[in-house]
Amino acid sequence: MTPAAAIVGDWGTSNLRLFLCSEDGAALASKAGPGAAAVDQPYPWLLSTLVSDWQRDHGELPIVLCGMVGSSIGWTQVPYVPCPASAGQIAARCVTIEGGRVCIVPGLSCTNRLDAPDVMRGEETQILGALQLEPPLRKGRRLLCLPGTHTKWVAINDGVVSDFLTAPTGELYSLLTRHSVLVSDARSAPGPATGADDAAFARGLEQVRLVPSADLLQRLFQCRSRRLIGELASADVPAFLSGLLIGSDAHSALRLMAHGTAGSVHIVGTEQLALLYARALQAFGASPESIDGEAAARAGLMHIYRSQAASRDPS
Amino acid sequence: MTPAAAIVGDWGTSNLRLFLCSEDGAALASKAGPGAAAVDQPYPWLLSTLVSDWQRDHGELPIVLCGMVGSSIGWTQVPYVPCPASAGQIAARCVTIEGGRVCIVPGLSCTNRLDAPDVMRGEETQILGALQLEPPLRKGRRLLCLPGTHTKWVAINDGVVSDFLTAPTGELYSLLTRHSVLVSDARSAPGPATGADDAAFARGLEQVRLVPSADLLQRLFQCRSRRLIGELASADVPAFLSGLLIGSDAHSALRLMAHGTAGSVHIVGTEQLALLYARALQAFGASPESIDGEAAARAGLMHIYRSQAASRDPS
Repeated sequence: MTPAAAIVGDWGTSNLRLFLCSEDGAALASKAGPGAAAVDQPYPWLLSTLVSDWQRDHGELPIVLCGMVGSSIGWTQVPYVPCPASAGQIAARCVTIEGGRVCIVPGLSCTNRLDAPDVMRGEETQILGALQLEPPLRKGRRLLCLPGTHTKWVAINDGVVSDFLTAPTGELYSLLTRHSVLVSDARSAPGPATGADDAAFARGLEQVRLVPSADLLQRLFQCRSRRLIGELASADVPAFLSGLLIGSDAHSALRLMAHGTAGSVHIVGTEQLALLYARALQAFGASPESIDGEAAARAGLMHIYRSQAASRDPS
Repeated sequence: MTPAAAIVGDWGTSNLRLFLCSEDGAALASKAGPGAAAVDQPYPWLLSTLVSDWQRDHGELPIVLCGMVGSSIGWTQVPYVPCPASAGQIAARCVTIEGGRVCIVPGLSCTNRLDAPDVMRGEETQILGALQLEPPLRKGRRLLCLPGTHTKWVAINDGVVSDFLTAPTGELYSLLTRHSVLVSDARSAPGPATGADDAAFARGLEQVRLVPSADLLQRLFQCRSRRLIGELASADVPAFLSGLLIGSDAHSALRLMAHGTAGSVHIVGTEQLALLYARALQAFGASPESIDGEAAARAGLMHIYRSQAASRDPS
């Protein structure tokens, strides 16, 4: 049996994913738990219950967690690290609790390209992981896209997170498909558009490309008007909306954040969202590459684990 | 007693406003009824019940209705009049039912400045009324703004509606304040921002002015980030959001629609929304003027009534 070295977890608002990892970062086992918003018992008790079998089989292991577990709704509040932030600075600002057994990764804050404050919690660990998994990302100017409920566009300069920009693209998709009269007939559609090969998604992207100076706000009504005049089937409205949203997001992000990156964008996320963002980025002339989001989170957490181990044992 | 000439009504999705009017358009009485989405009995029966006392006191009067009553969820479906559309063309395409006693005003369709289909039902009558109430609007290039759930920006050329653009600004405000984690703590806030003198509304406008090339999608997260870092009080989030939304709407509409209008914009709506849009338009260098939305609807309906009477009796 490969010896286990650490337990690491991405503890977001809605989900907890825990991994039992070997020293080289391979996942030996995994399990799910409640998101930070759903935790209704003391964190120490909940976590020790969740990992008790692993601890029983492998001894007491260090635990590294990232995400909303370090926020005001989490276990303990870990201050944001302001950008520009290097991997070393993030590791140095981790907070250890439970007598040093549990380490929580801080989120990042920045002033974004709209001259507004911006924050992330959890994505910084995926970024660290992406830099581990793809060493060339540590050189030069890079643009990362972490799609999701709140999509993050991240500018990296020689391996340092210089700034980032958040767009609530996934949340708007969810709100509009569930509650808006713009999408009404198609309201029962589950989740995001079901595939990147969807022609309605491409039509949404095309609308953004046609009039790039318009604002999303003035594109949305097409979901209704095209349906009313019979140009768009009700069943196609969610995919068309997804094209409008992801297209608006990608187009605007490239305009604001792509300087100096030669059009290359690394997408860190689930396969389904990565495919949709890749299509949008390609439609606007960028060159997307994908990195699996869960693998990136695990690699980032293990990078923090190794940094912590090194700082405890500098020999 | 001033003799009554007609019964006119603006029958939208959510509300019905009926007026008993004299020949010169003065409202002698008014009453409310269910919106088209809430009608659960035959329209002829419902309307005759609603107006039976007026008909009893004033005899059988002609009835003119506009709005969703002419849509697929209404009484009878009245085809859209394609733009460019003059007042005469709109009057000529009214549909009379119930043996000529009830006249329903058609909506308008157009290809908007995003090269996309756009539609309205009800607002065309407010536009006709605005042209009656403000005769100078019938000359030259004019831009009208009809704010609401789905705000309409309308280009008029020598009294003819040339095209228009819809932004679901009010609907997004309502969805985000009720359902979004971006506004969470302030979720209980009722309705739109409570006043045009709200400093948080001005801050939202300022964010649009600072980076006009950004998209609304990338401005929205500030509702959350500014609150998380303590820059914005929870209670101020709805007004700040309103500033972001109305600011994005007004800024983008001016860019797309204001050519040749010398910066003059006539707002046709309720006093509260007109004040907010006026502040946004002023912030971006335009000169707003206001026309009461209910008065405009009544003037438009009475214009249609007189057109119908004239076409029946051309002497």
